[in-house]
Amino acid sequence: MQLGMVGLGRMGADLVRRLMRHGHRCVVHDIQPATIDVLQNAGAVGAASIDEMMSLLESPRILWLMVPAGAVEAALADLWPRLAPGDIVIDGGNSYYRDDMKRSVELSGKGIHFVDVGISGGTAGLARGYCLMIGGEEDVVVYLTPLFTALACDAHDATEDTGKHATHDIGLPTDSNAPTAQSGYLYCGLHGAGHFVKMIHNGIEYGMMAAYAEGLNILRCANVGTQKQEVGAEVTPLRHPEYYQYTFDLADIAEVWRHGSVIDSWLLGKVVEMLRTDPTLARFAGRVSDSGEGRWSVEAAID
Amino acid sequence: MQLGMVGLGRMGADLVRRLMRHGHRCVVHDIQPATIDVLQNAGAVGAASIDEMMSLLESPRILWLMVPAGAVEAALADLWPRLAPGDIVIDGGNSYYRDDMKRSVELSGKGIHFVDVGISGGTAGLARGYCLMIGGEEDVVVYLTPLFTALACDAHDATEDTGKHATHDIGLPTDSNAPTAQSGYLYCGLHGAGHFVKMIHNGIEYGMMAAYAEGLNILRCANVGTQKQEVGAEVTPLRHPEYYQYTFDLADIAEVWRHGSVIDSWLLGKVVEMLRTDPTLARFAGRVSDSGEGRWSVEAAID
Amino acid sequence: MQLGMVGLGRMGADLVRRLMRHGHRCVVHDIQPATIDVLQNAGAVGAASIDEMMSLLESPRILWLMVPAGAVEAALADLWPRLAPGDIVIDGGNSYYRDDMKRSVELSGKGIHFVDVGISGGTAGLARGYCLMIGGEEDVVVYLTPLFTALACDAHDATEDTGKHATHDIGLPTDSNAPTAQSGYLYCGLHGAGHFVKMIHNGIEYGMMAAYAEGLNILRCANVGTQKQEVGAEVTPLRHPEYYQYTFDLADIAEVWRHGSVIDSWLLGKVVEMLRTDPTLARFAGRVSDSGEGRWSVEAAID
Amino acid sequence: MQLGMVGLGRMGADLVRRLMRHGHRCVVHDIQPATIDVLQNAGAVGAASIDEMMSLLESPRILWLMVPAGAVEAALADLWPRLAPGDIVIDGGNSYYRDDMKRSVELSGKGIHFVDVGISGGTAGLARGYCLMIGGEEDVVVYLTPLFTALACDAHDATEDTGKHATHDIGLPTDSNAPTAQSGYLYCGLHGAGHFVKMIHNGIEYGMMAAYAEGLNILRCANVGTQKQEVGAEVTPLRHPEYYQYTFDLADIAEVWRHGSVIDSWLLGKVVEMLRTDPTLARFAGRVSDSGEGRWSVEAAID
Repeated sequence: MQLGMVGLGRMGADLVRRLMRHGHRCVVHDIQPATIDVLQNAGAVGAASIDEMMSLLESPRILWLMVPAGAVEAALADLWPRLAPGDIVIDGGNSYYRDDMKRSVELSGKGIHFVDVGISGGTAGLARGYCLMIGGEEDVVVYLTPLFTALACDAHDATEDTGKHATHDIGLPTDSNAPTAQSGYLYCGLHGAGHFVKMIHNGIEYGMMAAYAEGLNILRCANVGTQKQEVGAEVTPLRHPEYYQYTFDLADIAEVWRHGSVIDSWLLGKVVEMLRTDPTLARFAGRVSDSGEGRWSVEAAID
Repeated sequence: MQLGMVGLGRMGADLVRRLMRHGHRCVVHDIQPATIDVLQNAGAVGAASIDEMMSLLESPRILWLMVPAGAVEAALADLWPRLAPGDIVIDGGNSYYRDDMKRSVELSGKGIHFVDVGISGGTAGLARGYCLMIGGEEDVVVYLTPLFTALACDAHDATEDTGKHATHDIGLPTDSNAPTAQSGYLYCGLHGAGHFVKMIHNGIEYGMMAAYAEGLNILRCANVGTQKQEVGAEVTPLRHPEYYQYTFDLADIAEVWRHGSVIDSWLLGKVVEMLRTDPTLARFAGRVSDSGEGRWSVEAAID
Repeated sequence: MQLGMVGLGRMGADLVRRLMRHGHRCVVHDIQPATIDVLQNAGAVGAASIDEMMSLLESPRILWLMVPAGAVEAALADLWPRLAPGDIVIDGGNSYYRDDMKRSVELSGKGIHFVDVGISGGTAGLARGYCLMIGGEEDVVVYLTPLFTALACDAHDATEDTGKHATHDIGLPTDSNAPTAQSGYLYCGLHGAGHFVKMIHNGIEYGMMAAYAEGLNILRCANVGTQKQEVGAEVTPLRHPEYYQYTFDLADIAEVWRHGSVIDSWLLGKVVEMLRTDPTLARFAGRVSDSGEGRWSVEAAID
Repeated sequence: MQLGMVGLGRMGADLVRRLMRHGHRCVVHDIQPATIDVLQNAGAVGAASIDEMMSLLESPRILWLMVPAGAVEAALADLWPRLAPGDIVIDGGNSYYRDDMKRSVELSGKGIHFVDVGISGGTAGLARGYCLMIGGEEDVVVYLTPLFTALACDAHDATEDTGKHATHDIGLPTDSNAPTAQSGYLYCGLHGAGHFVKMIHNGIEYGMMAAYAEGLNILRCANVGTQKQEVGAEVTPLRHPEYYQYTFDLADIAEVWRHGSVIDSWLLGKVVEMLRTDPTLARFAGRVSDSGEGRWSVEAAID
């Protein structure tokens, strides 16, 4: 298929590369011209402006937005006067699902289709494929299937990954009702469903990161009994320093957990990688920017 | 090597089977004679009593206890008068590491070595190997290496598992300092170190289970806006039912996360398996017995 | 002053009684005629309908809504066509402050003033006065001062309460900038400010209730070491039953904390009362209806 | 009665003063001679050494330790050879109740009685009396009653405090079974019971402090919608700044809650005092030393 990608950051560029590997034709645009050049050299058609992009796309046009959540509204305003009935706009970023609901209504008023796609996979996705959580009108999503199968961490990739083993190890019959889930993409429901599932996905990710971090931190401090303690009227000392005399190698421990343990995971692989290259995590700031999925997950939990 | 296994429950029996596959000779005992027969048919030498087991083992004897944590004290009391200097006792259960410390001191007074081994892997371990976290005297642990390599989820198994890909995907050089971690077993430090690391391992596991459970539960309830709400002076209704109109298939969502997502894990594979075979989890009681590692992890965190 | 009270439940009826004690004239209405009769006997003027109430009130009319949060919208719709410019509507319930904002804008379009009042004090308020947190246009709130001073737990009441001692005990100078706070009512800011402060007040209340409940529950279970424990492979027993041999009288302990302790509070007084009359709290269901302030406080914390 | 006070810090000195006001005779000692002089001027008998103190006390001697928890062990070792059968040692500090158990056994071996007293009241206690939670042998505690009634926030004090109103407001009958609780002291049970109840008391205190702090912090930030927000690809802005336009005066709000609200408490009085004298809490470090009761409460909850 042919599609136009707006936003050529790390994720947008990798999506274009993987789509082209599977034979799709990509028209690409970004506010930074240099990023266009790079992909043009890789086989994409560069568009210096939105107008040029629109003119290069065949009808019905497929436009994939891969911009920060805070920039989607402006990008849609830009596209709005240039879109024609039947065109399809895909938001592949981390937008709030409630915005998807609002935007899909606005666009449908002009006969334009809106699809929201939550994407997981990070930098590893280019090589092994992505996990895609999709919302919108079902027939539109089905129409776009060739794009999703190209991007997804599909059956072939899965033979090199945990996917296959999940099924084989536990002796599951092939589930005829969920073929696309096993191919790495899933139609989740109407507008916003893709980003809703991705929101919860990220909420789970943060919980897992907290579990690893808290556990490893206890191991890191398991030598606290060997250290001199603060003494004073207001501070109670550690009662049993003899129980905290261990000096653990966190990288080794994370590595051994990668082999046969029930807490093995993709994230644990990243933990090993980081602890091997930066054992005290000195390169890390100790804070993360808040793209919203955690907050929104908690609000959904309250509701 | 030759060893005696005391305790032939699910884990003990599987350990014996995997050890025998790798050429080790096992003398086996359990208070339930039927479990001895089963393993005898599989090639083990049955011992009807502890006395018989002791007489069948060559010196120095290696005794592996695979009994509930609450039964270790009694098992050790049983062994105590029958042990000779140089014998090695391995506790492979989920004992509290503080008990390891105490027991190692008691046994060392008679010249007996004590090794604590935390084991992760569950029912999948027989086929793919286990993750072993080991504490005790380092030379004794090195002496037992053939047993640990037989049991561990080693390099060969890892080609069928995530282990290999963890390394390959992230382009790590082989770490010459951590060869045993990559082979699925790790000497963690002095007495109790193995069970300490296993305790934290389980604490992390419970955190991960909570993250998956809470996230999936929000998805399960994402249709709450379609349901009739309680009305009354004391209850505030859901303000925006229009945002909760999704009916998600949890098994499909868990499955798609298995393919390329950053929250993929061995536990997520179990989640898929359970949701496929029991979509409402009706078979589950909604409670778990408390074997202690969670409580102890929190106490270590406080300390 | 003269005002019309709509809603004669427990709180509405007590407000009317306290207002009348201070010389204010009350026209009262409720959908349940019996509640009107009771207050009529106590000196109020009953109105069988909203229309009758409106005709009995002098201009500018002051209407005080004391209905469940879920019923405010309907009550306002009822009043809407009957209100005239200059009239004042007070919402004394537990409405969400965001609704106050919306409603104040709607009413101001017709020249009608809106005031939100968060009220704390419960059943004790009739006798000792209430704590009033007020939002709206400042001049309108000032105009209503006679009502607020009548209802508030003012200086005179405070001599019989903790209020006075708070000041005397800690040697505070009279703060000329906060005279109304010391009189038991406070203008907090524009529309919604009163209910915002009340929302957080309730969030704090729930936190305090949790602190008392969790602490008392530990005391209640401090005899756990005297009880027979569950034994089994999957359950780790209490390691030190000898440390949990106490049988505490919770009512006595709560009572002694009322005398000179730093955790003394009005809520602790209620705890004593309940534990004295119902030691096992058998009359309580173990759940509370959710009127929203807790949920909303958490969402405000996230924002 | 006559007693010897060891430890003349803030609490120890105030206890001596209050005991003397009620006619008790105090022999006082501290490692800092200056503190002895001050109390000697106030009517106490100074003892330059433990030996001197022991010689000045009549048999059976009553020794009250008011030293940091970490110094109790050393103080008891000092006393040990000088104590005679029948002597009574009282630990009035914040010792761990498990230490009380151990120490009472050790002392009883020599015929010496041990009493643990948890004390709440802080700097206000000298004037209004303290809340005393007491553990030990019941007959010994009864023998010491004159000391406890002198120190406690008793009925007379209570007329100036919340204690009386707690009873009067809620119409409770006098409970003949709990006369001492209403007098501000309570025999809680065998050795350690006093410090156990005090431990939980402090755990509750910390929970209440957290509730106030979290609630007030939300109010403090209720103007966040008026502030310029960080913008960027990784940060999701506040969705509804229009809902957070309030600028609240925290001292006024805390003050109004002191008048008739259900969250009124002694701690809230301290909050008002602090916010009045130091509105931004600039004098506070933002951390507290950890004297252990919080940690121990959590461990008791786990057990």
